[in-house]
Parts: sequence; C-alpha cells; structure tokens
Amino acid sequence: MGRPPTPLLSTDRIAAVAMELVSATGGFTIPDLAKKLQVSPSSLYNHVSGRDQIVELLRERAMSEVHLPDEPARPWADVVADILRSYRRSYARYPRLIPLLTAYPVNSSHAIGMYNVLAVTLHRAGFDATDTLRAITLMDCFVLGSALDLAAPEEPWESGAEVGPELAAALATGGPQPGRADDAFEYGLAVLLRGLG
Amino acid sequence: MGRPPTPLLSTDRIAAVAMELVSATGGFTIPDLAKKLQVSPSSLYNHVSGRDQIVELLRERAMSEVHLPDEPARPWADVVADILRSYRRSYARYPRLIPLLTAYPVNSSHAIGMYNVLAVTLHRAGFDATDTLRAITLMDCFVLGSALDLAAPEEPWESGAEVGPELAAALATGGPQPGRADDAFEYGLAVLLRGLG
Repeated sequence: MGRPPTPLLSTDRIAAVAMELVSATGGFTIPDLAKKLQVSPSSLYNHVSGRDQIVELLRERAMSEVHLPDEPARPWADVVADILRSYRRSYARYPRLIPLLTAYPVNSSHAIGMYNVLAVTLHRAGFDATDTLRAITLMDCFVLGSALDLAAPEEPWESGAEVGPELAAALATGGPQPGRADDAFEYGLAVLLRGLG
Repeated sequence: MGRPPTPLLSTDRIAAVAMELVSATGGFTIPDLAKKLQVSPSSLYNHVSGRDQIVELLRERAMSEVHLPDEPARPWADVVADILRSYRRSYARYPRLIPLLTAYPVNSSHAIGMYNVLAVTLHRAGFDATDTLRAITLMDCFVLGSALDLAAPEEPWESGAEVGPELAAALATGGPQPGRADDAFEYGLAVLLRGLG
C-alpha cells in the first residue's frame, strides 16, 4: 500500500512512452525506453518483438485520426482530398516521428488500409499501376512535408537584409499559424489534384 | 607528444559533431554535444550563441549542395525544376535532420538565397505575392517529403494478406532504390509544375 502503483507493462504503454521519447529527442533506443518504463530490456521483449514492432505501433498512433471515406462513388479527387486532409492532421501531431516512420517499411493495418483505398480510388480514376504508385508516393511526400510545415514556427523565415523584395512581399502575406500552413496546404492540394487530373 | 592531438574547437567541428548526433539519434542536446566534443558546455558558448545557431549551421550543411541556376532568362518551370532537384538531393543526405530544421525559423544565407531565387522566378512568371508564398511552401513540402522518400527502405511497403489487388499491382511496379524514389520524384515534379502552370 505504501508505494505508488506501477502501471502494468503493455504494448500500449510501451508505444506511449516511445512516442514521448521521440517527441522529446527525435528517436528512441531500447535501453532508454526500458529505463523510462523502469523495466529491464528483456521484459520489453515479452511484449514486443523488437524495434520494428515498436515503430509500427508508433505508425498506428500517427495514423489513428486518418478517416477513410465510406462513399466510394464520389469523384476520385474529392475522396483523395479528404484522405490527405485527415492524413496530414493526424501526422502533424507527431512531426519528429516522421523520418523514423519513413525509414521503416509500412506494415500496419491502419496504413495498409489507407493505401488500399488510395490505390482503388486511383485505379477507378484510370491511373495504371505504375502511375498509381507514383501518385501515392507524391501524396505521401506532400502530406508528410505539409505535416512538418504545420509544426513550423509562426515566422518560418526570419526577415533580414538578405531577403530580396520579391521574397519579402511573399513573406508579408503569411498570417499566423495554423492558418498560414492550412492555407498553403489547401493551395498545394488543389495544385496537386489539377496536375494529376 | 604522448597524447593524441585534440582538434581545436570551431563552429565547423561543432556542426559536424551535432550532425553526427542528429543522424544517429534524431536530435542533439547541448550537454550531449559538449560531451562528444570533450569540452564543457560553456566552452561551446565561446563559439556559438546557442542551439539556434547550431541548427542554422546544420541547415547550411544540408543546403550545401543546392545549386542555383545562373541563367535567369530560362523558362520559370525549368529554373524551379533544377533548384528542386538539387534541393532534394542535398537534403536527402540528412533525413533525420529535416523535422529539426522545419521547427526553427530559416535564418541562413544559403537558404535565404535559394528562397530569393524562387520568389524572383515566380514573380517573373506572374505569381502574385500570396501565391508565391503558397507555391514556395508547396515546393518545400514536396522536396522535404521526397528527401525522406529517398531515404526509405528498398521495400517501403511490406506485402501481406491485407494488401488489396490494386495496391499490390502498384507496388509491383516499384524498382530498387534510388531508382524508385527518383522516378516518383520526377513524376511528382511534373505534376506539381503542371498544376502550377
């Protein structure tokens, strides 16, 4: 009764603490994770098979707010736009996780589910298999870059003597966050869909 | 004569070791950096003003292979394409650095120089100041996402039972790296320029 209850080790708790480490430091190691959970590294392996599985648990968290549309009959560009909007929002919660996720092969149901819907939607829109992979890769690159931009500071460029008049005029149009990033994302999404269409 | 020479502390050496830490762990702290350089944190402050300046030194390294075209009379889309190609290649060397750079305001001559050329080029092409900022943001998001994709594993998606036939067909068209990422980048660049044009 005298000591505080120690939460039971679970995959959920391992993922939550690994996410804290990534958000604070940009990465995690198994020894650091075990230390923060106050367990031995070998106890971790009773719950997860290794680093790869922890990365997939983090990917599932990053994707947890991705909504997949349930009206497949809508125009393909609308379906894609809705997916990419929620994909960006969901990932923007964990910007420092992004290079860790892109360094590991995708192997979680959440993620495969989203890519399945994108592939089916592009296939129905007439994209062949080669262009479907290229278009999905383009969407991924755009969304992950945009998720990073949503985490950018209020003034993403410092104004100084080296800033020329054209750049200064452009920078002056940028409002506060998240409005600036949201506006740029919608513009970029429209450009991308126009270019793909 | 008996002990190995200790390299003199310099901003170059501080940046090189900070980059090693970021590449290995995803981030750096001043205490870790001082420890790795075998100096006290206060010695670091004789060379750099703080964390912000170190991040800018890392940004300059990431941008060191960005080539700016010297023929401003060429079509705007060709100028932009050349810049974005070298921007992606240059950043792809340091994928784990990317979320650190996007979290800090841009304040290095290299970077401001590139954004100046992009802003002048878009202005000449008829983009107004608002769309210039949006288009530059789109280019940034696309390039940084694509730099991460170039660092992705050979098989960025694991094939499993959950992969539907449309996604499986698309994945089957992907060749080995860096060819897969290069091909997708050129496709995405063409889509982006078509959508902007």
